[in-house]
Amino acid sequence: MILAARIKENSSRYIQELSAFLKIPSISTDTEYTPQVREAAQWLEKSFTSLNASSVTVHETAGHPIVTAEFCVDALKPTVLVYGHYDVQPAGDLTKWESDPFNPTIHDGKIFARGATDDKGQVFTYLKAIELLQEQGPLPCNIRFLIEGSEEISSKNLPEFLEAHPEITKCDAAVISDTAIIDEDTPSITTGLRGHTRVNVTVKGPVKDVHSGSFGGAITNPMEALCKMIATVTDDKGRVTMPGFYDNIRDYTAEERALINSRDMDAVVKEETGVAALVGEENFTTLERIGIRPAFTALNMHAGPATGILTGVISSNAKAFLAIRTVPGQSPVGVGEMLIKHLKDNAPKGVTVEAEICGKPSSPWTLKSFKDPAYQAAAQSFEQVWGKTPIPEFNGGSIPVVEMLQNSGVSPTLMGFGLESDALHGPNEHMSINRIEKGIETVALFFGNFAEKHAAQKKVTVVPT
Amino acid sequence: MILAARIKENSSRYIQELSAFLKIPSISTDTEYTPQVREAAQWLEKSFTSLNASSVTVHETAGHPIVTAEFCVDALKPTVLVYGHYDVQPAGDLTKWESDPFNPTIHDGKIFARGATDDKGQVFTYLKAIELLQEQGPLPCNIRFLIEGSEEISSKNLPEFLEAHPEITKCDAAVISDTAIIDEDTPSITTGLRGHTRVNVTVKGPVKDVHSGSFGGAITNPMEALCKMIATVTDDKGRVTMPGFYDNIRDYTAEERALINSRDMDAVVKEETGVAALVGEENFTTLERIGIRPAFTALNMHAGPATGILTGVISSNAKAFLAIRTVPGQSPVGVGEMLIKHLKDNAPKGVTVEAEICGKPSSPWTLKSFKDPAYQAAAQSFEQVWGKTPIPEFNGGSIPVVEMLQNSGVSPTLMGFGLESDALHGPNEHMSINRIEKGIETVALFFGNFAEKHAAQKKVTVVPT
Repeated sequence: MILAARIKENSSRYIQELSAFLKIPSISTDTEYTPQVREAAQWLEKSFTSLNASSVTVHETAGHPIVTAEFCVDALKPTVLVYGHYDVQPAGDLTKWESDPFNPTIHDGKIFARGATDDKGQVFTYLKAIELLQEQGPLPCNIRFLIEGSEEISSKNLPEFLEAHPEITKCDAAVISDTAIIDEDTPSITTGLRGHTRVNVTVKGPVKDVHSGSFGGAITNPMEALCKMIATVTDDKGRVTMPGFYDNIRDYTAEERALINSRDMDAVVKEETGVAALVGEENFTTLERIGIRPAFTALNMHAGPATGILTGVISSNAKAFLAIRTVPGQSPVGVGEMLIKHLKDNAPKGVTVEAEICGKPSSPWTLKSFKDPAYQAAAQSFEQVWGKTPIPEFNGGSIPVVEMLQNSGVSPTLMGFGLESDALHGPNEHMSINRIEKGIETVALFFGNFAEKHAAQKKVTVVPT
Repeated sequence: MILAARIKENSSRYIQELSAFLKIPSISTDTEYTPQVREAAQWLEKSFTSLNASSVTVHETAGHPIVTAEFCVDALKPTVLVYGHYDVQPAGDLTKWESDPFNPTIHDGKIFARGATDDKGQVFTYLKAIELLQEQGPLPCNIRFLIEGSEEISSKNLPEFLEAHPEITKCDAAVISDTAIIDEDTPSITTGLRGHTRVNVTVKGPVKDVHSGSFGGAITNPMEALCKMIATVTDDKGRVTMPGFYDNIRDYTAEERALINSRDMDAVVKEETGVAALVGEENFTTLERIGIRPAFTALNMHAGPATGILTGVISSNAKAFLAIRTVPGQSPVGVGEMLIKHLKDNAPKGVTVEAEICGKPSSPWTLKSFKDPAYQAAAQSFEQVWGKTPIPEFNGGSIPVVEMLQNSGVSPTLMGFGLESDALHGPNEHMSINRIEKGIETVALFFGNFAEKHAAQKKVTVVPT
């Protein structure tokens, strides 16, 4: 309450300060803006210094700088790692912007600028949360910031940096605010991200395209063979038939499934896709099918001449690009190899099959448990500010930085305040002032809530059984 | 013997005369050559007149002229209709020709010119056969020529012409020399042509391409659906599983199958296609699989972005172009509709299927029986001249004119003297002088042999049982 009142009081100053951050065109994708990217890093350095950070460092990398800041209050208190990024996407087509992307404009309760939601606006909530907490006394926990300038170019310098600085990821929890909630009034916490393993397959038959009249019926047609192979991967409900595919995947308790299913996804999926009937693995809800269950997805297939050509030949080869969306418990490379073996084992006689994993498979990630103190602290904070229990969200795509942190042993809580409709990456990117204010409050509450829950959990853990 | 000796005597004159025919650039595909196409028709008119034809007519059509000529000897004798064409393909890339395509050149025992084998050289054998037969006395049967000038442009004026002149197709047999034999020393008679019915199918799922992470597992993927649908059309040996598909198709006797299988096609198909294993319907040889059995052939399929694009979306639709090679007894439209119904019946839940027959299905054709007197006369003539029983050949593609004659109630015997290696339609088209000479002899013998077999069959038929 007091927090909310203070935020309202400071709101116009906040927007002014955020505007200064947003004015810097820290476009990491365009080398012409390299000085401006550094300028944004320096803006952060200055901000952390003003907040009396224990230490602030602008780390040089092969690419753009990485800014770290430590707020050490008590070695006995837990440490929270905050990840964010200060770089932005290019503005794109300026004619589609209603205002200058690097001259923040406020109307309809929103601030319009490149980076407003992705991710400067969200990073900013942490700076103001710390400012507010410091007014009240010492910070409830140690806080470490890791704010990079290359997120929009695949965080390419981050893995090397994290490897060189293992102390950065030594923490009790990590939090990222770079995701979306459901709508302005409905908070959610991204709880799981499926991984992605893609396989390229080529089926070869005759050495050249051959006349279908002269050879049809006597040789195996690569396109038909590939269709048959793909058809064997799933049953008629889309459940993968490959033996062992579902072994070792994370099980969810009835309680967890109830929490996951607190949102009805059927209407959303029907609305988004326009399909009349939802089809998927039996005994799982739509939300579970896309969130906690793996899926086989065929991405493309090409065989024969272009559509519309009145051909009469059997094409010498057929190509497909197939994928598996993986969930924790599955090895991204392992399921790719399983798929390749399955395709080869199920290839009709008379064709040869070439298949390989394409690109680096991304790892699936999910919150280890809804009992995780960071998740619970985030959920409690959302509840206090928004008045609603946040919905655990499962996001389809992988987020590279989550995988990188995961590789360093950290499982972050994705406490984002964006909206899919914020036009991140598009023209007229914006963030509502409401969410900036609520975000600051939620972040401020989060640190205290986490410290409490961490202590409570520690207490429980140390009780001899 | 005497015939062969006379042909050898006249050989150089024949080549001179044929050269005059070949010199005319009667390219039907290019309107610039319309006068030359007519010139070739007039060359034929003059040739038939020189042979004292009972009547010769150059029929005007909406396109190029059609030349008919009657050699009436006796109303009680059978009438043979001879179809051929005097138009040719364009020369194409002149730099690939070793000599002028319209200035016939002789070397290595071959005459090189556009039209040498397709079809002027073959039509020419009939003119010389008649000349030779006339030296010996009256022709053994009535002969009617139907030589068109639009074969290379799909015989487009022929159906209308045949409909307007039903008397043209009133005959006891029809013969066409516009196909190939197996090699210089191995005669064959094209005995069957499979038909072709093509179906376009589109499977529609989500209204737009959707993220495979966000929706994979919850909706039916159109590409996977189409693969499953196509996979159900045939079993693992390529036998079509659609009920009723093989009903009513022409059965072959053991004797006929022995004749068909007098040639081993396995090595040929392996050589042509480079495949290690031949796969097809059980209990049929390779030759039967491509000759007398129908086949399902998938021609193309496209779903998703182009090969090489690292996509992660479920494509909103998938398209395929499928076909059936039909054999006599099957309705070309009927099997197309059967395929469409099968695809729709086997479509997974959650997608919609649009399918339609594409283009006009071509009809299958086959010799009604190896006991057909025209087939037997052709076989006997080949045997007399080549010293070998001709192999019944089944050709993959349909030949439009065969279908047109079939529609007029005529089932022609395809007694061609070409070779696939004659470069018809390509640069350096040619015909061997050996085959021109043997062709003349074979044609001359054919008319007598046919008249005899026709009389014998008639005799058998009129004996009261």
